[in-house]
Amino acid sequence: MSSPLTRIDHIGIACRNLDDTVEFYRATYGFEVFHTEVNEEQGVREAMLKINSTDDGGASYLQLLEPTREDSAIAKWMAKNGEGVHHVAFGTADVATTTADIVGKGVRSLYEQPRRGSMGSTINFLHPKDAHGVLVELVQAAEGDEH
Amino acid sequence: MSSPLTRIDHIGIACRNLDDTVEFYRATYGFEVFHTEVNEEQGVREAMLKINSTDDGGASYLQLLEPTREDSAIAKWMAKNGEGVHHVAFGTADVATTTADIVGKGVRSLYEQPRRGSMGSTINFLHPKDAHGVLVELVQAAEGDEH
Repeated sequence: MSSPLTRIDHIGIACRNLDDTVEFYRATYGFEVFHTEVNEEQGVREAMLKINSTDDGGASYLQLLEPTREDSAIAKWMAKNGEGVHHVAFGTADVATTTADIVGKGVRSLYEQPRRGSMGSTINFLHPKDAHGVLVELVQAAEGDEH
Repeated sequence: MSSPLTRIDHIGIACRNLDDTVEFYRATYGFEVFHTEVNEEQGVREAMLKINSTDDGGASYLQLLEPTREDSAIAKWMAKNGEGVHHVAFGTADVATTTADIVGKGVRSLYEQPRRGSMGSTINFLHPKDAHGVLVELVQAAEGDEH
């Protein structure tokens, strides 16, 4: 069986101060910012650091996430857990179909319909309580995007 | 500046029962076991699930980790945090030099000298308190290993 999840798309990492954390990753590891954006729906300001390209024609990133408001999911998570790895994202060619297939196996998704993710992607999440403690994001890249 | 860390090598995920968790990842996501081993020094039994190849000639894996004894680092971590993402590993061509460079920037490593990791690799870890809450592993693949 081959998987519909063809790459590690990104690792989502919660941080208190995005600018300071971006500078830490640059100075310590040599990782550069590939893209930044604010996602008001998710309540996050984020930076994508590209680590490598992948053999499905995409790439793997670190996604550094700073909450923009105290009632965002990432702020609540960080209040409990501190800074650190928040979620793991896998790339797929069709997020709606892949999510439906996985939901059909008894794993809850967080959204009824896919929402907008980084860089014009379409995303959903799987509930960590159904997935051995890992918050999993499913990502379909924007049309024509190489990642 | 290009980074000496050229890929996401793996994401280390702590679990209570390796066989059950491997079966969950297979049935839910279609991820297959690439390699299994016991690392007595680390006190873990582990399965590597290959997700994609990377453009540095390596690959990205999920590493599922079950403690083999209660005094292992992974058992202690899981007693506090439950199942979930334990660490993030980056691949590098020279783990000793890369670790020394990063330690020189004020980030503590967990070991004085590199130790044995999965599949004959050589590894070190960086202290999460010095790295914005992320336990980072540095991995040099075994000589001649394509990963």
